[in-house]
Amino acid sequence: MLLLLDKNITSDHRRTLDEAIHGAGCTITETPTRQGLLLLIDGDLDHLRQVPLKIFDGVTKVVPLSGAYSLGSLEHQAEPTVVKVGDTHIGGGGFVVIGGPCAVEDESTLREIAIQVKTSGATILRGGAYKPRTSPYSFRGLGLDGLLMLRDIGQETGLATVSEVCDPRHIEACISNLDMLQVGTRNMSNFDLLIEIGKSGHPVLLKRGRSATINDWLNAAEYILAQGNPNVVLCERGVRGFDTATRNTLDLAAIPAVRERSHLPILIDPSHATGKASYVPPMAKAACAAGADGVIIEVHCNPQAALSDAEQALEPSDFRDLCEDLRLLETVRGSRTQS
Amino acid sequence: MLLLLDKNITSDHRRTLDEAIHGAGCTITETPTRQGLLLLIDGDLDHLRQVPLKIFDGVTKVVPLSGAYSLGSLEHQAEPTVVKVGDTHIGGGGFVVIGGPCAVEDESTLREIAIQVKTSGATILRGGAYKPRTSPYSFRGLGLDGLLMLRDIGQETGLATVSEVCDPRHIEACISNLDMLQVGTRNMSNFDLLIEIGKSGHPVLLKRGRSATINDWLNAAEYILAQGNPNVVLCERGVRGFDTATRNTLDLAAIPAVRERSHLPILIDPSHATGKASYVPPMAKAACAAGADGVIIEVHCNPQAALSDAEQALEPSDFRDLCEDLRLLETVRGSRTQS
Amino acid sequence: MLLLLDKNITSDHRRTLDEAIHGAGCTITETPTRQGLLLLIDGDLDHLRQVPLKIFDGVTKVVPLSGAYSLGSLEHQAEPTVVKVGDTHIGGGGFVVIGGPCAVEDESTLREIAIQVKTSGATILRGGAYKPRTSPYSFRGLGLDGLLMLRDIGQETGLATVSEVCDPRHIEACISNLDMLQVGTRNMSNFDLLIEIGKSGHPVLLKRGRSATINDWLNAAEYILAQGNPNVVLCERGVRGFDTATRNTLDLAAIPAVRERSHLPILIDPSHATGKASYVPPMAKAACAAGADGVIIEVHCNPQAALSDAEQALEPSDFRDLCEDLRLLETVRGSRTQS
Amino acid sequence: MLLLLDKNITSDHRRTLDEAIHGAGCTITETPTRQGLLLLIDGDLDHLRQVPLKIFDGVTKVVPLSGAYSLGSLEHQAEPTVVKVGDTHIGGGGFVVIGGPCAVEDESTLREIAIQVKTSGATILRGGAYKPRTSPYSFRGLGLDGLLMLRDIGQETGLATVSEVCDPRHIEACISNLDMLQVGTRNMSNFDLLIEIGKSGHPVLLKRGRSATINDWLNAAEYILAQGNPNVVLCERGVRGFDTATRNTLDLAAIPAVRERSHLPILIDPSHATGKASYVPPMAKAACAAGADGVIIEVHCNPQAALSDAEQALEPSDFRDLCEDLRLLETVRGSRTQS
Repeated sequence: MLLLLDKNITSDHRRTLDEAIHGAGCTITETPTRQGLLLLIDGDLDHLRQVPLKIFDGVTKVVPLSGAYSLGSLEHQAEPTVVKVGDTHIGGGGFVVIGGPCAVEDESTLREIAIQVKTSGATILRGGAYKPRTSPYSFRGLGLDGLLMLRDIGQETGLATVSEVCDPRHIEACISNLDMLQVGTRNMSNFDLLIEIGKSGHPVLLKRGRSATINDWLNAAEYILAQGNPNVVLCERGVRGFDTATRNTLDLAAIPAVRERSHLPILIDPSHATGKASYVPPMAKAACAAGADGVIIEVHCNPQAALSDAEQALEPSDFRDLCEDLRLLETVRGSRTQS
Repeated sequence: MLLLLDKNITSDHRRTLDEAIHGAGCTITETPTRQGLLLLIDGDLDHLRQVPLKIFDGVTKVVPLSGAYSLGSLEHQAEPTVVKVGDTHIGGGGFVVIGGPCAVEDESTLREIAIQVKTSGATILRGGAYKPRTSPYSFRGLGLDGLLMLRDIGQETGLATVSEVCDPRHIEACISNLDMLQVGTRNMSNFDLLIEIGKSGHPVLLKRGRSATINDWLNAAEYILAQGNPNVVLCERGVRGFDTATRNTLDLAAIPAVRERSHLPILIDPSHATGKASYVPPMAKAACAAGADGVIIEVHCNPQAALSDAEQALEPSDFRDLCEDLRLLETVRGSRTQS
Repeated sequence: MLLLLDKNITSDHRRTLDEAIHGAGCTITETPTRQGLLLLIDGDLDHLRQVPLKIFDGVTKVVPLSGAYSLGSLEHQAEPTVVKVGDTHIGGGGFVVIGGPCAVEDESTLREIAIQVKTSGATILRGGAYKPRTSPYSFRGLGLDGLLMLRDIGQETGLATVSEVCDPRHIEACISNLDMLQVGTRNMSNFDLLIEIGKSGHPVLLKRGRSATINDWLNAAEYILAQGNPNVVLCERGVRGFDTATRNTLDLAAIPAVRERSHLPILIDPSHATGKASYVPPMAKAACAAGADGVIIEVHCNPQAALSDAEQALEPSDFRDLCEDLRLLETVRGSRTQS
Repeated sequence: MLLLLDKNITSDHRRTLDEAIHGAGCTITETPTRQGLLLLIDGDLDHLRQVPLKIFDGVTKVVPLSGAYSLGSLEHQAEPTVVKVGDTHIGGGGFVVIGGPCAVEDESTLREIAIQVKTSGATILRGGAYKPRTSPYSFRGLGLDGLLMLRDIGQETGLATVSEVCDPRHIEACISNLDMLQVGTRNMSNFDLLIEIGKSGHPVLLKRGRSATINDWLNAAEYILAQGNPNVVLCERGVRGFDTATRNTLDLAAIPAVRERSHLPILIDPSHATGKASYVPPMAKAACAAGADGVIIEVHCNPQAALSDAEQALEPSDFRDLCEDLRLLETVRGSRTQS
C-alpha cells in the first residue's frame, strides 16, 4: 500500500498515522517525492486495509497496491513468463494441450489413452495418482504406483507428465517422477504445500480455488514465486456458482483479468469446470479465442456407451476433433487477436 | 413432471398418491404404457417438487421435466429458431453484432456512433432510452425522445434498432419505434411485462437475470412464448459472482447449456458482464468460438482519453478491429466446430 | 460522492477534474470548508465510480457516499422509522409477527388459517393473490378475488393484511383492499412499480432481491421514499447461494448492516429463505435475538401428514409454539441486547 | 447410494446395471427386502452420481445417501456427540464461549486478553500461532513460540486452548501444547491433514470451507471420524457471498441443517463471518437463539480508539456484555426452543 502525505502534515498528525500503521503490525518505508512524502507500507495489509487511512489528517492519497510489488505482477516483470515442461513451452504465445484420464487406473488403460492423446497432438499427459475426494470412502488413487506408471508411459510415448500433489511429504516422490506438479483447487490455500513446492523449483500448475478471487489466486502463486521458483502456470477450472446446470461456473474473463495483472501463463480446465463432456469442446475453443495459453482436458477410452454421456471425459475421437479445431483457431487468433 | 407407476400399484397407494398431487395444486393426465401407467403432472410443480414422490409406494420412476414439454424446449422444436430483426437474422448459424451506446444522450452523438457501428459491419443499433438505474438519482434516460432519435438514426443509417423496455405502459411506444425490444436483467422476472411483450409478437432480447439459473431463464422465455410470440432471443450478460475483478461473472457455458435445452438463439453481452473495455474483445471472441449467435457491445466516441480506460464501452477503432476478428473467427468455427 | 480538494489546486488541475466529472455525466455542487473546497458529485455515479478520482492532482480525499445523502440513510434521519399497518407498529423496538398462507386458495381455508394466526398472537395476515411463478404454467393466484377474500377475512378477524403487487396497473385495486403492499424479490428492481407505489403513500414491505447487495436494496427503497412515501419496511428473505441444503442463504447479518445504514425497519422471512418448515423456528428466533423488527411466516392447515414434511409452511400448532418462544425471546433481548 | 430393484428385473437388465456401477469404480452390496433387492453402492459415488441410474430398466428407486451411512450421520448415531476440551463439554445442550485474539502476538498481551476472556465467563482461549495469510508477505504467526505462550497462559488462567494447524508436520507440537486443534477454512479440504488429525484422536474444531456445501463439510468431518477420532466440532464461519457489506455471508441456517443430518456439535464464528466488531454481538446472539452449541469470538485489548472501529475483534468490555446477554438467552432458549 502506498500513502502520499501532505507536504505540510503536522508532526502530531504524522505520529497518529504512524501509530495506526505500526499498531496494525505494518512497516513503513519513506520515499520523498515532489508532491510530498510517499510511504510504502508492508506487512499485515489485510489488517491495515480495514483502517480508513484516507480520513487521517495529512494523508493526501491512498493507493492500494494489492500485490503490485509482488514477483508475479507485471510491474515486476513485463514480458510473459514461459515455463518449460519436458519439451513443451507454456506461455509466450503458443497454445498447449494437456490430456489424460482423471485418475491413473492401470497401466494398459493409461497406455491406451496416452497413445490417443499423443496422436491427437497433445504434448503433456495428465493423470491423478493422489486423488483428493469429497468422501473418504471414494477411490483415492494409486499413489506412488500411479506416479511410476505415469513416468513409464510418459517415457514410452514421449509425453511430459503432470499430476496432483496434496501433501508436502509426497513432493519428493512427485518431483522424481513427474515433469510438472499440480496443486488442485482444494489446496490452493494450503500454503505450507505451496512453500515446499516453491523451494523445489519444479514447474507447477496452480489451479484456482473454488471461491478464490483473482487476487487470492495471484497471492497463492506468490507463495511459490517468493521461494525462488518462477515456473508457475495458473489454471482456471471454474468457481462455485449457484446454477446446477454446470458443476462450476467457468470464469473465462479470468484470462484478460490475469493478463492485465501478471506475466504468468494461464491454462483453462473446461472438464472440471463444466462437468459435462458435451460442454468441453465449446469451452476449450472459447478459451483459445480468448487468448489462453492452453487447456487441460480429461480423456479416457470408456467402451461403455451407456456411461459416456454422463461424464466429463472426452472420448478419444472427440478429443482428436477438438485438437484439430484448436489448431485452426490458434492460427486465426493471431497477434492482433491476442488478448 | 412424469411419474411411471408400477403395473401392480394397489388402489390405496394410488389414492394416497393422487391426494398428494392434487393437494399440491397439480393436475394429472394419464397415459398407459407397456411399463405401466404414465402420469403427466402439471400445475404448481415448484410446490410438488418438494414432495419426495419417488418414495411413495407404487411409483416406479420420477422424471422431472423442467420445461420439457414447454414451447422453448428442443422436445417441442428441434430446429433452431431464427428471429428476424429488420434485415438481420438471429439464430441458425450466423454471427450477429449489435453495437451502440449505453444510453441515448443526444442526436449528434448517436449519429456519430451509429455511423461507426454500421461501418464496422454491425447491423443492429442499441441504445437505452428508458434506463433502470441502481439509484433513483442517476440519469434515467431520455424516454420517448430517445426512442424517436433511435428510430430516426436507424432509418438514416440502415441499422435495425433495439432498446430496453421496463414498464408495460411503454410497450406500445417502443413497438412503434423499435425493431426489437430488450428486457433487462432487472426485469427478467417481471412476468407481467413479459406477458404483454408476448402478446405483442414483437422480437425481444431477453437478458438473463443476475441470479437466474438457466432453468429460470428458459421459464421466463416461456412466459413470452406462451402468449404466441416465438421471436425470443436469449442474452447472457454475466451473473452475480464474488470476485470484484469483473462486474459480473460471464457464464459462457450458458451457450452449450442453452443449446442442449432450447432452440432459441443466444447472444452474449461482454460489456455489461465484465464492466471493462479491455476485457470485451477476448470475451466477444470466446463467445463466437463457443458457438453463440452473436454479441451485443457497447460503443461510444468519447474523446477524453482520461476516461476511456475506466469504462466498458469500446472506442470505435477497437470495435472495428473486434468486428474484423469476429468475422475471421466465424469462418473457422465452421460446421464441425458448431457447438 | 464527496471530493475534498487541495486548497492550492491549480486551475489546470481543477479543469481536468471538472472535465472528467462532467464527461461522466455528473454534476458538481461546491461547498467551501476550512480544509479546502468540498465537491458534492451527483448524477451517474455508477459510471464515475470507475474513474480513479483519487489519483487526480489536487484531490485530497474521495468519500463515496453510496446513498449517504439519501432519504433512507441515518444521516438523513437518526431516529427509527415506525410504519403503521392497521393497528400494528413496525419498527422502533417491538417485534411483529405476520403469518398466513403462501397463496390465497379459497375463503374457508383462508379463514381457518387466519383464525389460527390471530389466536397465536400475530397481527398481520399475509396471502398471495397475484403470484409470480418461475413457470407460466404454474398456479398464478386468484387475482382480485383473492384480494377481496383477504380484505373480508382481515375485517372478520381483526388482522391487518399484506399481499404482493407485481404490476403498476394493479396498485389501485391492491391499495383499496390491503393495509400493506408487498414488493417481491423478483420485482425489487422493477423501478416503475416502485415509483408508482411511492406515489401512493401506502405502507410497503420491500423484499430484498435474490442477488441484491444491501446497497442495491437501500437504493430500491430510495425509489419509493423519493416519491414522498416514508412507509417502507425492508424484508430479508434469503439471497442466492451455492448450497442446495436450503433454498436460499438467509443473510441475518443484513440486520446489523441495515441498522448501521438506515432508519427503516427490517423484517425477516425465514420461510422463503430456507424453504423448509423445520428450519423456520430456529431462524425466526435467530432473527429476534439479532434485533429484527419482526418476521413473516408461512402458515397453513394442511391435513395431509404426508405432504407437511416437504414444505416450508408451518402447521398452526408449530406456529403457535414459535410465537410463544418469540415473545419470551423479545423480553430478554431487551434494550442492551438491541443491535 | 441405495438402489431398489424391481422384483422381476431380467438378468440382462441386471447385468447392464452391474456393468455401469462397476464401470464407475463402485462396489455393490446386496440386501433382499420385501419390495425387491436393495443394493448399497459404495466407492466413487461422485462419478456414479452422474449416471442416470433411475432410467435403467429394472431400477425401481434411487436413494442418494450422501453420507447417510457415514459415522457423522444421525443414522449412525442418534444422540448428540459431546466433545470434552479441558473441562469444557461442547455439544449436548450447553452453550460454550471461546474467546481470544486473532494471532498470538506476545506473552503480556495474550495474558491480558486471557484474563478478560476468563473473567467474562468464557472457558476456552483461542489464538493463532500458525497463521495462513492471503499474501506470503503478511505476518504469519509466531509458530512454536506462540504455541508455548498459549499453553503457559492457558495453565495460568485455567482456560483450555485451541489454535490452528495447517501442516501435518506441525500436528505433534500442536497436540503436545493445545487442548484442541483447529482446521481453518482454507484447509477444510486438505485431506492429508485431516487424516493425520484423525489418527491423533485429539479434539478438533473443523471450520467450514469458504465455498463448501453442508455435504462437503460433513464429508470433511468424515475424513477425521473414519480414522477413529470422534472428537469433531463443526464451526460455521461464513461462506463466500457477493455482498461486500460483510466479509463473508454467515449461514446460520447451517445450524438446523447440520442438526438434521449429524450428531456433531456446531459452533459459530461471527468474527470472521462478518469482519466487523459491531455485527458480532447480534450474530452471536442469533447463533444462540438458533440452537448452536457455542461461539468463537475474537477479543483483544487495543488501546487505540482510532483502530478499534475498523476491526472485527471485540474490546473486552463489549465481550463481557455479550457473554452476559448470551447467558440470559441460553436460559430462555430452553428445551422447547432447541432446534
